[in-house]
Amino acid sequence: MPTVITNARPWGGPAGDIVVVDGRISAVVAPGGAPDAERVVDAGGRVAVPSFSDVHVHLDSTRLGLPFRPHTGAPGTWNSIMNDRQHWRSAEKSVAERATYTLGRMIALGATRVRSHAQVDADSGLEKLEGVLAARQTHVDRASVQVVAFPQVGIHLERGVVDLLDAALAMGADLVGGIDPCEIDRDPVRHLDSVFALAGKHGKGIDVHLHERGSLGLFSLDLILERVEATAMQGLVTVSHAFCLAADSAPSRRAVERIAELDVALTTIAPGCGLDLPLSALVEAGVRVGLGMDGQRDYWSPYGNADMLDRTYQLAFTQGYDRAEDLDLCLAVATEGGAGVIDGARPRLGPVVGPVVGPVVGPGLAPGDPADLVLFEAESTASAVMDRPGDRLVLHRGAVVAASGELI
Amino acid sequence: MPTVITNARPWGGPAGDIVVVDGRISAVVAPGGAPDAERVVDAGGRVAVPSFSDVHVHLDSTRLGLPFRPHTGAPGTWNSIMNDRQHWRSAEKSVAERATYTLGRMIALGATRVRSHAQVDADSGLEKLEGVLAARQTHVDRASVQVVAFPQVGIHLERGVVDLLDAALAMGADLVGGIDPCEIDRDPVRHLDSVFALAGKHGKGIDVHLHERGSLGLFSLDLILERVEATAMQGLVTVSHAFCLAADSAPSRRAVERIAELDVALTTIAPGCGLDLPLSALVEAGVRVGLGMDGQRDYWSPYGNADMLDRTYQLAFTQGYDRAEDLDLCLAVATEGGAGVIDGARPRLGPVVGPVVGPVVGPGLAPGDPADLVLFEAESTASAVMDRPGDRLVLHRGAVVAASGELI
Repeated sequence: MPTVITNARPWGGPAGDIVVVDGRISAVVAPGGAPDAERVVDAGGRVAVPSFSDVHVHLDSTRLGLPFRPHTGAPGTWNSIMNDRQHWRSAEKSVAERATYTLGRMIALGATRVRSHAQVDADSGLEKLEGVLAARQTHVDRASVQVVAFPQVGIHLERGVVDLLDAALAMGADLVGGIDPCEIDRDPVRHLDSVFALAGKHGKGIDVHLHERGSLGLFSLDLILERVEATAMQGLVTVSHAFCLAADSAPSRRAVERIAELDVALTTIAPGCGLDLPLSALVEAGVRVGLGMDGQRDYWSPYGNADMLDRTYQLAFTQGYDRAEDLDLCLAVATEGGAGVIDGARPRLGPVVGPVVGPVVGPGLAPGDPADLVLFEAESTASAVMDRPGDRLVLHRGAVVAASGELI
Repeated sequence: MPTVITNARPWGGPAGDIVVVDGRISAVVAPGGAPDAERVVDAGGRVAVPSFSDVHVHLDSTRLGLPFRPHTGAPGTWNSIMNDRQHWRSAEKSVAERATYTLGRMIALGATRVRSHAQVDADSGLEKLEGVLAARQTHVDRASVQVVAFPQVGIHLERGVVDLLDAALAMGADLVGGIDPCEIDRDPVRHLDSVFALAGKHGKGIDVHLHERGSLGLFSLDLILERVEATAMQGLVTVSHAFCLAADSAPSRRAVERIAELDVALTTIAPGCGLDLPLSALVEAGVRVGLGMDGQRDYWSPYGNADMLDRTYQLAFTQGYDRAEDLDLCLAVATEGGAGVIDGARPRLGPVVGPVVGPVVGPGLAPGDPADLVLFEAESTASAVMDRPGDRLVLHRGAVVAASGELI
């Protein structure tokens, strides 16, 4: 017997009933046209979109829910790394408790697909990874969480990191990370060869932080792309941030073509400050792109509030978008786009047009798609991106996991 | 007999009682130390700061509260002007009704000091001005509102605009506006001479929109500054946007010094996209700077939600600020900074430090300051900028004008 979500408006279109069988959407039918159901969830006319996918969050460092801590640490990646190292052990709660709380808030606000980094380094060993894995376990029925074993402090600067990453992948990390191959380890080939070797050994994916800008970043990106091709890892590699693509230059445009060709995914946190990805061009080129919230009020930054809809607004704002179809695109990237980053399938992110009852043409709500949904009160998807309504109804695999901003 | 606001935390410091006499703060005393009061308002431990000052809003064009309208119109100032002209008369409600509603929402969210532009042009005549003046009248006991007679479509492109501006100033506009002297009228001297002549005739201030970028914008700015000096209008002129100051160049740094010298005020809407003012440098140079929300979901843009605290967050984000003292600075600019733009007095915006009960050292809460306050639940001012709590208690001249996000 199916579950039916009645009176929902898929992508803000006419109201319909969403029929869910075995955790997947089986049909979207006209109101009242659904078969007998085991469970009926009244959506009350809310707009329904796929649940949010936060594809780039650091659950291991979050301080959400703890006393607000004035930011310390000087600007720059290295200073931020050291500032975090100096302070994280003095947090009022354990990594597991903090990650569990923040993941819960993210789910309550509509994110049921998450890729979190967990820092693996000589100082913290596997402690942060264990905390994030524990948070995933606590919320296992509420969200799908991937964990990246992330060598925040480089791989070859400190002893034992390769072994730690190896152990992390053996104990449950889904991907191996990397970071700024030139600027951190200062030996890009050695850094990237280690990352790709670990991925190959464990048969897992890769997600590399790339903050390097301009031609240096494009060089590191090239080295990554060469290795994707050489190791036939098309569809399995993500580059996060990719600030080097922000410049509208011929080399960065060529890089975008190559990224599409090799099916490398990108993640952005909508950083502003001239570091934003060329979103429209990426989507047009067929590149998988997802949105993430990065740190959640941690030792790196006071920003981050667990709300992917707020970050979707930020994506629209930083892209300078004002047209409804572009606001919809931001919502598509934040939901189905990120799902494609996580599961490797290329999503359809084009403008959401046409009648959505019957065959649903908005991304992520077609028969066969997972019934991971977020519903909110709004006139339309575009107005929701502007208004960021707080009251959310959240489903994961067809089950209601949060309502009115609280976990169930 | 005074009004006493008990258990408030001025600028997030220790709780105290704020004593209000004749609409002004007379003292901030330790809890329970206030004299007998005519009225007691329990702040319940909320953080208290001066009310928000929206120094740059377009109340005449707002569509807040009306059905969300997908954005039309091509990019660029001129296209936006023409798109607005094409559609504004078809709005579901009159200018007065729309301006009144949006001003009410702004007050409910904590802005009791407002400078609104009202477009004066050959198409709309004085109709938009009349609407904004009506909104001001409706909320006269809840907020202090200045109105700028704003020649959105230039002064000399269409017939009769000088006379319309003259009439606007005679019928209640507080300032005369101007816009992009080179790019709109394409005759910067004639444009600015008209603006300064109108101001001189009516003994009123000036607020010029300056979107022009780079060296062209710096040229127009120079022409404005020359006229401020020649007409002895120090302290009476505002330049809005001033995108030309965003570039970190020697000419823009020299312009900042001259702006400080001539006591010209600046307003920003925290636009992002590389157009942000050098806020720290401006404050350090002693320039009066305020924050505004610009359009409020209108024919120009879907952005704008009547919430100055949300815009304060945007200011912090676009400035790339993460330190608590810089978040406090954003709040100071959004409140007391804007008050200084509106009333011409140079405010103290430095870091908020030291004991705040007894002599209050945070800006805008000293004895003698107007009892225009906004109070919200927050740990600190910095955390409030990040969290943007929705529940506001708002006072204007010592009277509670809004609570829990609703007007009283």
